[in-house]
Amino acid sequence: MQPKNDTSFLMISAAIVGASGYSGAELLRLLSLHNDVRIHAVAAHQWIGKRVDELYPVFSGNVDLTFGDINDESFMDADVVFLALPSGTAMSIVPGLLKGRARVVDLGGDFRLKSPQLYEQYYGHSHTAIPVLADAVYGLPELNGPAIRDARLVANPGCYPTSALLPLLPVIKGGIIAPGGITINSLSGVSGAGRSSSADMSFAEINENIRAYKIGRHQHIPEIQAVLESVIGEPVQVSFVPHLVPITRGIYTTIHANLSGSYTDAEIFDCYKSFYRDAAFVRIRTQIPQLKDVLYTNYCDIFCSIERRTNQLIMVSVIDNLVKGAAGQAIQNMNIMSGYPEASGLKGKENHQQ
Amino acid sequence: MQPKNDTSFLMISAAIVGASGYSGAELLRLLSLHNDVRIHAVAAHQWIGKRVDELYPVFSGNVDLTFGDINDESFMDADVVFLALPSGTAMSIVPGLLKGRARVVDLGGDFRLKSPQLYEQYYGHSHTAIPVLADAVYGLPELNGPAIRDARLVANPGCYPTSALLPLLPVIKGGIIAPGGITINSLSGVSGAGRSSSADMSFAEINENIRAYKIGRHQHIPEIQAVLESVIGEPVQVSFVPHLVPITRGIYTTIHANLSGSYTDAEIFDCYKSFYRDAAFVRIRTQIPQLKDVLYTNYCDIFCSIERRTNQLIMVSVIDNLVKGAAGQAIQNMNIMSGYPEASGLKGKENHQQ
Amino acid sequence: MQPKNDTSFLMISAAIVGASGYSGAELLRLLSLHNDVRIHAVAAHQWIGKRVDELYPVFSGNVDLTFGDINDESFMDADVVFLALPSGTAMSIVPGLLKGRARVVDLGGDFRLKSPQLYEQYYGHSHTAIPVLADAVYGLPELNGPAIRDARLVANPGCYPTSALLPLLPVIKGGIIAPGGITINSLSGVSGAGRSSSADMSFAEINENIRAYKIGRHQHIPEIQAVLESVIGEPVQVSFVPHLVPITRGIYTTIHANLSGSYTDAEIFDCYKSFYRDAAFVRIRTQIPQLKDVLYTNYCDIFCSIERRTNQLIMVSVIDNLVKGAAGQAIQNMNIMSGYPEASGLKGKENHQQ
Amino acid sequence: MQPKNDTSFLMISAAIVGASGYSGAELLRLLSLHNDVRIHAVAAHQWIGKRVDELYPVFSGNVDLTFGDINDESFMDADVVFLALPSGTAMSIVPGLLKGRARVVDLGGDFRLKSPQLYEQYYGHSHTAIPVLADAVYGLPELNGPAIRDARLVANPGCYPTSALLPLLPVIKGGIIAPGGITINSLSGVSGAGRSSSADMSFAEINENIRAYKIGRHQHIPEIQAVLESVIGEPVQVSFVPHLVPITRGIYTTIHANLSGSYTDAEIFDCYKSFYRDAAFVRIRTQIPQLKDVLYTNYCDIFCSIERRTNQLIMVSVIDNLVKGAAGQAIQNMNIMSGYPEASGLKGKENHQQ
Repeated sequence: MQPKNDTSFLMISAAIVGASGYSGAELLRLLSLHNDVRIHAVAAHQWIGKRVDELYPVFSGNVDLTFGDINDESFMDADVVFLALPSGTAMSIVPGLLKGRARVVDLGGDFRLKSPQLYEQYYGHSHTAIPVLADAVYGLPELNGPAIRDARLVANPGCYPTSALLPLLPVIKGGIIAPGGITINSLSGVSGAGRSSSADMSFAEINENIRAYKIGRHQHIPEIQAVLESVIGEPVQVSFVPHLVPITRGIYTTIHANLSGSYTDAEIFDCYKSFYRDAAFVRIRTQIPQLKDVLYTNYCDIFCSIERRTNQLIMVSVIDNLVKGAAGQAIQNMNIMSGYPEASGLKGKENHQQ
Repeated sequence: MQPKNDTSFLMISAAIVGASGYSGAELLRLLSLHNDVRIHAVAAHQWIGKRVDELYPVFSGNVDLTFGDINDESFMDADVVFLALPSGTAMSIVPGLLKGRARVVDLGGDFRLKSPQLYEQYYGHSHTAIPVLADAVYGLPELNGPAIRDARLVANPGCYPTSALLPLLPVIKGGIIAPGGITINSLSGVSGAGRSSSADMSFAEINENIRAYKIGRHQHIPEIQAVLESVIGEPVQVSFVPHLVPITRGIYTTIHANLSGSYTDAEIFDCYKSFYRDAAFVRIRTQIPQLKDVLYTNYCDIFCSIERRTNQLIMVSVIDNLVKGAAGQAIQNMNIMSGYPEASGLKGKENHQQ
Repeated sequence: MQPKNDTSFLMISAAIVGASGYSGAELLRLLSLHNDVRIHAVAAHQWIGKRVDELYPVFSGNVDLTFGDINDESFMDADVVFLALPSGTAMSIVPGLLKGRARVVDLGGDFRLKSPQLYEQYYGHSHTAIPVLADAVYGLPELNGPAIRDARLVANPGCYPTSALLPLLPVIKGGIIAPGGITINSLSGVSGAGRSSSADMSFAEINENIRAYKIGRHQHIPEIQAVLESVIGEPVQVSFVPHLVPITRGIYTTIHANLSGSYTDAEIFDCYKSFYRDAAFVRIRTQIPQLKDVLYTNYCDIFCSIERRTNQLIMVSVIDNLVKGAAGQAIQNMNIMSGYPEASGLKGKENHQQ
Repeated sequence: MQPKNDTSFLMISAAIVGASGYSGAELLRLLSLHNDVRIHAVAAHQWIGKRVDELYPVFSGNVDLTFGDINDESFMDADVVFLALPSGTAMSIVPGLLKGRARVVDLGGDFRLKSPQLYEQYYGHSHTAIPVLADAVYGLPELNGPAIRDARLVANPGCYPTSALLPLLPVIKGGIIAPGGITINSLSGVSGAGRSSSADMSFAEINENIRAYKIGRHQHIPEIQAVLESVIGEPVQVSFVPHLVPITRGIYTTIHANLSGSYTDAEIFDCYKSFYRDAAFVRIRTQIPQLKDVLYTNYCDIFCSIERRTNQLIMVSVIDNLVKGAAGQAIQNMNIMSGYPEASGLKGKENHQQ
């Protein structure tokens, strides 16, 4: 084992606020495996003073931390603060944090939409940190890498938008699909809903069951549309239906879009390959992917198929909602912000050896 | 309840060929609860001579039968013969059966498509009983009740087509949706794939996993299109993606279609209510249904929602693939063919008392 | 089938208090299929005025009832009142109910233990209806059939005790196993814990997980011991460990006991066969049973095996915790109390034809 | 990132035979994360010439290997060869391998029992490499660390024995429990049965189901007994019942044993703490563990509780059957054999910093 002393002054000091939810716990798991990170402090308002490994015995022996309070000054000292909080909470904390030296990655939805009107319409409460909105960079590394590098505040994308945007971006930007009539159906595991004590999320209600929800009014609809519109500079229309299925982790997204002309399989494959030439975590597949191909990884696997009969492009993507859809992408953003290789701590050793 | 003494000589004598698969076992379960049916004989070529309750201990004490051979003459004596066989097998048996007195309900796909060309294209082998195709009635009772009554051979609909046609029929017939650009995404439990010894269907491969399959080439695509086209007399274009999710039973189908004009919620609700006025097993819901609302029942629950932003109609339907999608619908057809109330043996006692 | 006209005035009028939990819903499901029962009234204090099929859409079209209040006089008019309530609640209601004409089946634990001291020790609160304890009959039909027939108040057995007592009773009564050193390990689905909004019971916490709980202090320990002691008239020592596994329904119980001497397989098989000669719902199996052999039925399947190496008897039993472990057994008790065949409404049609 | 050049000549060269099963794939996953290992070659006779990431797309981008043949000489060159093969296969390969320089870790059962008679009785075929048996070291690091260090051939323990021996060893060696009357009940996920194409292991058969199997005749019984007897030098009697439950990974084991005298909780806790003072992967818990506390880790968590009423010790242990029960423990053995820290590649970074 190599002496750590030589490089430790370069280690990233990270803090997590909202560390007791599923995204927060996944941040803990991944950061505790990251050779270049020291977890500095963790906060969870309902567990102050409790050891992390009491709440999560799986970390016993690997994570030696106690939940603290967000107001502890240690959070101001961190290089990077991750926020994994319910919508509406981050916007009350971020302005204060930004007065200090820390850079912030917000895993929630408070800074993803540039429009306070859309925020209020879809989130159901008004935005209280409007001046900060302009500073937030949408943290999809495959789209915004350079801006993320310099950002003080990164708005980590939603899990569904991550799964929908990665397959859509190359073909909408390339003009291959029409910007209207895009239909997105997503199947999600329950961890996406957070650590819940609702009877609706109990095992007996979820097991052997499926349900669609928030049809036509999910807060990720304006997020998907806004990003696509920013890329092509014209209006985009997507219809999105999320479904809850009895799995713990993962999102499976199937998208139908109208082709703008006549394309060969090779042309479309090349479009994807070219767009993601330098992407560390997008794999263009030639077979229909399964969810398990990406579980516990930061990959998004993408497949597409031309349906000649209807002249549509059918796209499929799979991600782990807690990794590429939340904590993993947040760490990918942290790596970029800190000048480390994008994949540090997120892949096997091969990637560290580059 | 009718006095049983008077009518017992009128009990339906039923036989099942292919009784060892999941649809066959579900037929056994439902028929063993049906007061007007006597199970006459069951065949399963790999289990000849074995008692049914040895293979399915759950039936011990309730079903006193032994698997026989399809060539036993008892099958010719039955009033109704149910076929629950792999595709390609029924068409070798049906012509012989029809020479006898029995009426046949085929739960497989051999007689659903009128076009032998489409059959060969989608099933991958040629049709060997083409003369019989013209006699087969498509057994969707909500569409073809009178024809089913007089049929010698009923082609029980596929599970996916049942879940897609029931929400589509009223609005496509009413001109409310356009006949092109219909997108169907279905999530299915694994029992739909039959009793399998494939490693792909093992628990470790299905659990915590999702996969789409047969994108653009599933054999239920021409079935759905042909039925819709027969109703409106013009071409219909549907795109269909089936997904396998880790549940045992059930199909959840979400459909997007373009509205042909501007409609109110009430107009569309009335269209459904009117179309299914006399349907015993279709429930028009005002909340998004869950799969568990229909499990172990013969109901299809339907919900729809207008999405003003995209001017689409989003429809959701749920069925139990082994009941309304297979065995239950087959018994519903048997009831109609035999002059019994459609719901006999398929609902609680309230329905028998009508 | 009896001519219904003659007996319809004899239909049992049933009421359910606590109808919104899983046991209550299962009572609704089974009673709605029972030809000799009319559901008179249902109560659920948090849902007063709400239609049953709004809370449970699966009943839509089959159950036409609205949740009422326990104080409605209709509950006093019922022939049989089922109580499916949290422990401690039934004992405040039962004394009042018994002043009326109704007979009561309590699915909870308040009247199972004759000893108020043991009740307080294991349930954690004192008993407030001690005078009624003497009138309560322990409702295990295979043990107490005649007493149940005449009881005003039946204490329906716990789910774990049902699964443990049925395999133990014949061999402990027959002196085949020793009354000490009995080890019971049970695996239970989550519906046994009731309709829960606890985060511990959420899908993400139960799925892909197992946990033992209440080791050495579960309230079903004194229940099992007391029944066995009442049968053999001497002290019995059992150790019991319940485990929660990721299934919705069912209990799988494995029991180790020391053989009192040397027995043949046939002797022990005969002991069981003889003990359960007239039992409608106990099946003695010659192969290791699976849980699915009994799901959605009122059966208890029992298997046993002599382990020569250790001179132990290893017993396995399986039940559906919501049926034989709760609602089904309660209806079995109702049938006995009302003079109907024990299996009425609980088996397929074969059993009604006796 | 540290320069790898300095230490790379010390990297362990590892080969895997039987890399396409679940244990083999888990070896691949863990070894690809191990900084001190280079995977040299992988063999799977049915996939020769196929890329690993075609069979397991999850490895795409991280594992760049093609399945080869066991007879390739590259296997003779490896420092360590892992065998993950069906019982009976390893014993035909090991004698040849031992003629070369490679050291071998066999994850199967062929070299765990010193007695060829017991092997034949429980495995159902005779042993064909008896001379090698004497050289095999039973690879439970917590028991046999020094012998493992020098072994040419390590017999990696069975998954059930690992879960049973770790809680039993301290208290049986310490004389705290009696050597007879030990009852072991284990609940296992299905991956323990290997990658299967049996209909019995299909999702529809396992989901919502439980079954015990091989009662009194499982091949892990003599393994558990032999290890315990070797430790205390007198006969030991255990009864063992394995159960299959609907989870993919993990083993939950509950053990009852008779206390040899009167002990305090603290005495027994100290016995465990002392025995496992230096163990990197055993955690003594003060709360009942859950399976998820150890999933995807190499830990075994142990809990015990004195039951005064019966004077028994009830022990609970949890492991991930594919990690501590197979691939992880094999790598732990490789680390010890190679002079690396026991935990290399098996914990987060904290543990590498020791």
